[in-house]
Amino acid sequence: MTNRSCVIRLSRYKNALLRLRTLNFVRVFSENLADAAGVTATQVRKDFSIFGITGNRRGGYKVDELIEQLNKILGKDKIQKFILVGMGNLGKALVQYAGFERSGIKIVAGFDIDANKWDKEGPVPICPLEELSEVIRRHEIEFGIITVPDFAAQQVLELMIPAGIRGVLNFAPICVKGPEGCVVNNINLVTELENIIYFVNASEKTQESQQ
Amino acid sequence: MTNRSCVIRLSRYKNALLRLRTLNFVRVFSENLADAAGVTATQVRKDFSIFGITGNRRGGYKVDELIEQLNKILGKDKIQKFILVGMGNLGKALVQYAGFERSGIKIVAGFDIDANKWDKEGPVPICPLEELSEVIRRHEIEFGIITVPDFAAQQVLELMIPAGIRGVLNFAPICVKGPEGCVVNNINLVTELENIIYFVNASEKTQESQQ
Repeated sequence: MTNRSCVIRLSRYKNALLRLRTLNFVRVFSENLADAAGVTATQVRKDFSIFGITGNRRGGYKVDELIEQLNKILGKDKIQKFILVGMGNLGKALVQYAGFERSGIKIVAGFDIDANKWDKEGPVPICPLEELSEVIRRHEIEFGIITVPDFAAQQVLELMIPAGIRGVLNFAPICVKGPEGCVVNNINLVTELENIIYFVNASEKTQESQQ
Repeated sequence: MTNRSCVIRLSRYKNALLRLRTLNFVRVFSENLADAAGVTATQVRKDFSIFGITGNRRGGYKVDELIEQLNKILGKDKIQKFILVGMGNLGKALVQYAGFERSGIKIVAGFDIDANKWDKEGPVPICPLEELSEVIRRHEIEFGIITVPDFAAQQVLELMIPAGIRGVLNFAPICVKGPEGCVVNNINLVTELENIIYFVNASEKTQESQQ
């Protein structure tokens, strides 16, 4: 019944609501959320109805209640702990990304094989890769982020899984594969840029052929 | 006929081929590319047939020819130039990301409003935001990356478009909207992590209800 796109939209509604709350909004309408998430109001109502969230045609939704309901659906009613492996530039940027903490996501520790990167005194401790299993088990962490070079990514995934990781976001430019029951999403930055290049070129060609 | 998923798969095949070439592969089969991209061999052949790429049942595809054909389709037969606005941690990481240069993508310049970040002597010059239009026009750049805070993202997009940018990858945690004919993709890092949390929790619930 739910798919990746639907869950991504729920996240977007929730993030828009958090912003609206800072503007002192008490009520919000499906049209407002539609604008913020770049979808139609019908889509918003459809997504909500899947999860039994109902508004009031005249009064809309109550912002506070809606945030609470969405957080519960998204598993965000408690702090969600992540570990990250690969303290290159991207790994460092993600460990320092303020948006995570604001959204109830905490990177508990970073890991690297390079001793120059280790630092247990910082706000997020950076540890030797050998300590990965122990830290995952001690903090009962279920989620991981991979920002290592492509050749190391599958190996890192295979260290994470037996220690208890069940969901991974992989930025290494290679599709890593987890066992059944493990959620692995891949973001390839090159692919994302190539996608934009392709569609810009495609629209240029269409325009030329119309002239 | 082509959609975002198909183009993403073409990028993946191409990236796998580049790796296979470094291993001295001369020929490759749809089954090899299927494994590397995490799809079926039928899917690979279907994607290729859309673009008139044909192999040979016995001999497979020639790696060099296939890379050339895919690069052409993806608009990668020449260096593709980008600018990036927002030199925070993520912006810095992207400007330094070695994977782009290897894939024929060049970030020509970075921009920020903060004078402390300006640096015209580095490998990628970091310039004041005021120079954005001039640099885009001088280098005839069509592609941009946004890594500014959410409240500034739409404004940055609206500076980019009149100067000539036609495709944008936005990392600010807000959906920015471009005019018609402009390609804008949004990557929200929080949403990506929330997606993983949701699907791990959903699979836990399914397992519990089966017990």
